[in-house]
Amino acid sequence: MEAYKNSSRILVALDCIIFGFDGETLKLLLIKRNFEPEFGKWSLMGGFVEENEDLQDAATRILFTLTGLQNNYLEQLHTFGAVNRDPVERTISVGYYSLVNIADQDPNTLRAHNASWIELKRVPKLIFDHDDMVDLALKRLRYKAALYPIGFELLPEKFTIPQLQKLYEAIYDVQLDRRNFRRKILATDLLLETGEKDLTSVTKKGQLYSLNLEKYPDYQKYLNGFYAFLPELAAFVPA
Amino acid sequence: MEAYKNSSRILVALDCIIFGFDGETLKLLLIKRNFEPEFGKWSLMGGFVEENEDLQDAATRILFTLTGLQNNYLEQLHTFGAVNRDPVERTISVGYYSLVNIADQDPNTLRAHNASWIELKRVPKLIFDHDDMVDLALKRLRYKAALYPIGFELLPEKFTIPQLQKLYEAIYDVQLDRRNFRRKILATDLLLETGEKDLTSVTKKGQLYSLNLEKYPDYQKYLNGFYAFLPELAAFVPA
Repeated sequence: MEAYKNSSRILVALDCIIFGFDGETLKLLLIKRNFEPEFGKWSLMGGFVEENEDLQDAATRILFTLTGLQNNYLEQLHTFGAVNRDPVERTISVGYYSLVNIADQDPNTLRAHNASWIELKRVPKLIFDHDDMVDLALKRLRYKAALYPIGFELLPEKFTIPQLQKLYEAIYDVQLDRRNFRRKILATDLLLETGEKDLTSVTKKGQLYSLNLEKYPDYQKYLNGFYAFLPELAAFVPA
Repeated sequence: MEAYKNSSRILVALDCIIFGFDGETLKLLLIKRNFEPEFGKWSLMGGFVEENEDLQDAATRILFTLTGLQNNYLEQLHTFGAVNRDPVERTISVGYYSLVNIADQDPNTLRAHNASWIELKRVPKLIFDHDDMVDLALKRLRYKAALYPIGFELLPEKFTIPQLQKLYEAIYDVQLDRRNFRRKILATDLLLETGEKDLTSVTKKGQLYSLNLEKYPDYQKYLNGFYAFLPELAAFVPA
């Protein structure tokens, strides 16, 4: 047990990279710090892990404190451990990223924390290594949203296909062909017609869909087992 | 700065999930503990992160201590933070996984640490949450090896196509069709003919290949940008 006795205890923080979508652009929830260190600068929302708290619980707590939301998509991203990343004291930070539907969230809680939704393309320089955290989270979101239907977490429960397309365009910063997108997304069988129309739609083509929750678990299962399709995947990759 | 003063410092460990391939099966490097806690039981190789040590440096140190090897494939996997995962004291553990060519490594260093290569299918019950670490590392290896040519890290520099096939079969625990595998892997343009033959091959078809390092970076670049191919990827996923 000597090793336990002789080893250093280290501060462990947890930082949340919170993505939101407002129907047009991808945004990040950031706080303008009214506390030290780095008073007045922009940062992710974070906090220290408590002695009797699991990591996932700490992430849930921090996310709830800032947004008033629970049960959001929340996934561990990466642990950042450079010795001097925090100038006050050696602190290791576990990064979690989360996907939030901006409309769902409580503006009063945001204001209380001096937090704002900032368009991803206009995010200012953040403190410490928070820029690296955001870069990595965006990469992870892009990879995940290509293989899993997690993008839906960013949408209201009922959405139109153009809204869904805008979401994918925002995530990947690309323009997609309207007809191809429609055809391919309908072919996945993941969308359920609600029979309702989006009354705010100007095109009057605003048929509202919801995610087919019955298909969703199959899809997950399929994708979790996608490595079994290795030969086909390999064939898909051009030389 | 109150939050710094009032927060708990926590022990931070680092555990290495080390995969190896011996030409036939996938193996895991494990130690039979001759120290407390859990004396006499099997575990991953690990250690505590030192106060002035980056996480990646700690992983490199631990891997080197056990194998005598440097410059191996080493990637952060996940941080395990359940409150009671270590019965001695609250310890958060950062898991790293590594890929090692078994032939490269020093048997004396292994012996000095009471370490053995154990076939993945025959791994005994491990201490703490090390079983979960292994499960997650295998999932990550399977996903990574389907999208990136990292499997090559487990092979000698020169290898035959049947050896490469055996490696993929071991990683995915599947049987692959010999001719299809040969055709698809040659189509990737990732293999370079060395002009040499594997003299130990019984089939006399033992043409030796090496990884085409010139193609490798392109391939990486392509795959890092694979989200740009979202529409094609989506089309590839069956409903």
